[in-house]
Amino acid sequence: MPPIGADSQIEVARSIESLRARVDGWRADKLTVGFVPTMGALHRGHLSLIAKAASLADRVVASIFVNPKQFAPGEDLASYPRQEARDLELLASAGCQLAYLPDAAVMYPPGFQTSVAVAELSKGLCGESRPHFFGGVATVVCKLLNQARPDIAVFGEKDFQQLLVIKRMVRDLDMPVEIVGAPIVREADGLAMSSRNAYLSAEERKRAGALNRVIADVARDLENGARVDTALRSGRAALEAAGLTKIDYLEARSAENLTPLGPGPLAGAPARVFAAIFVGKARLIDNWPVGGDRG
Amino acid sequence: MPPIGADSQIEVARSIESLRARVDGWRADKLTVGFVPTMGALHRGHLSLIAKAASLADRVVASIFVNPKQFAPGEDLASYPRQEARDLELLASAGCQLAYLPDAAVMYPPGFQTSVAVAELSKGLCGESRPHFFGGVATVVCKLLNQARPDIAVFGEKDFQQLLVIKRMVRDLDMPVEIVGAPIVREADGLAMSSRNAYLSAEERKRAGALNRVIADVARDLENGARVDTALRSGRAALEAAGLTKIDYLEARSAENLTPLGPGPLAGAPARVFAAIFVGKARLIDNWPVGGDRG
Repeated sequence: MPPIGADSQIEVARSIESLRARVDGWRADKLTVGFVPTMGALHRGHLSLIAKAASLADRVVASIFVNPKQFAPGEDLASYPRQEARDLELLASAGCQLAYLPDAAVMYPPGFQTSVAVAELSKGLCGESRPHFFGGVATVVCKLLNQARPDIAVFGEKDFQQLLVIKRMVRDLDMPVEIVGAPIVREADGLAMSSRNAYLSAEERKRAGALNRVIADVARDLENGARVDTALRSGRAALEAAGLTKIDYLEARSAENLTPLGPGPLAGAPARVFAAIFVGKARLIDNWPVGGDRG
Repeated sequence: MPPIGADSQIEVARSIESLRARVDGWRADKLTVGFVPTMGALHRGHLSLIAKAASLADRVVASIFVNPKQFAPGEDLASYPRQEARDLELLASAGCQLAYLPDAAVMYPPGFQTSVAVAELSKGLCGESRPHFFGGVATVVCKLLNQARPDIAVFGEKDFQQLLVIKRMVRDLDMPVEIVGAPIVREADGLAMSSRNAYLSAEERKRAGALNRVIADVARDLENGARVDTALRSGRAALEAAGLTKIDYLEARSAENLTPLGPGPLAGAPARVFAAIFVGKARLIDNWPVGGDRG
């Protein structure tokens, strides 16, 4: 975590009008604009997205909005961590000039009834256990991009399926923005950074460290010519041996269009290993490239 | 129909890139851009939309694209009238500077899988007998608006439900464009102009003229305090007496959100009478305002 300067300052917009006024002003000055949508509870993963945006554009806007439409009843909408003051300090220190913090009434006023859906890419993996999720994500990201009108927007590869859904939506709807992926940022033991890691007890946190090692092993086995069904079976056994017994999914899929791969050895096209597990109150996801397509 | 000048000239773009190059050039010159999406087979109704756009913006783009996604199997996609050369002359004569004619491969390249849906407004009326229709319309209009990026876009009130669906989509997705409605243009006997009127035989065409008179009568009855159920019953009887026996729907609904009205007298909020009938090979729609909300 970078040091937080006591004098960090960042402009805050809470309405579409104030967001657009600032972005339009930058545009009039011929400055390019990068955008990083977040749900807050920021960690080093988010800050790497800000840094990536800052490396590609003259100004960076980050949004913080815990989007109710991507949570199903019973999921963790109410308990999702919120830490606005700290988030604003982190954004300022990471090189973000404008924080956009709309509330739900700004995003979903009375009468709201439009949705965006990306059909095939939203199926399987996280779309299986969270059927509301990608519709909610596509709709809110479509809105945020239309509100902020950036030149580029940066999304983390930890939510790799989400990244592909957003890229497809932008291409299919001809939205005038470039979507950029950024590599996963990991803790010392390799656990992918996630706001939901905060849900873990010390013991659960320790166990969770095995997730990334197992999917890296599966990816290496596949790279070495193992059959997909064999490698995934070994992976499941390794997760269970590490005490990670509540497996939502462990799969090998195309890194381009998420087509399921196997059961035999991979044929050579870019592939990725995807996993989701439940640990205590958290549902954790991670993914690992097979072979040379690592960011 | 205005006279068509033999020297009418209009620029034609068939790719998103050439469309955007022209529009961006106008924008660099501080010119505003109006947009009129059509399916071609242009008539005076379309030309009134061009004139409206020309009155509100410095430059006018019209698109011609017979959108396969808004036709269901068995509907008239294959037989829908196409007359490109004549349409281009008409657009030029009406004050349109750029015609955008993408083909299906430009609009829906391989892998396309995104859709936009406007939930409540797409139900009932035309959404009942054409369940694919408004999803197809919302998706293609979202794309066309993102491709052309106009300041305003003009839609006819003949497709009143479509106009409300598009307005809602633009508002809900925060698209940076203003949607403008334009009044229905009618033939001498009041029949609403439609490309599908070309499907009618001489005898069917004559019969079809009763549609607008009947819905105008229903609207006047409602304005005078008649019960909705009574007025609609009289309307159905009048349609049948005029030989228009294949009635898809005849309804009174809110002109703001399409809520069904009745069975008693109207309470005062803006209302509209909506009808769809089948005549020969054509399905014709029309609508009429109750009281003072006539455009």
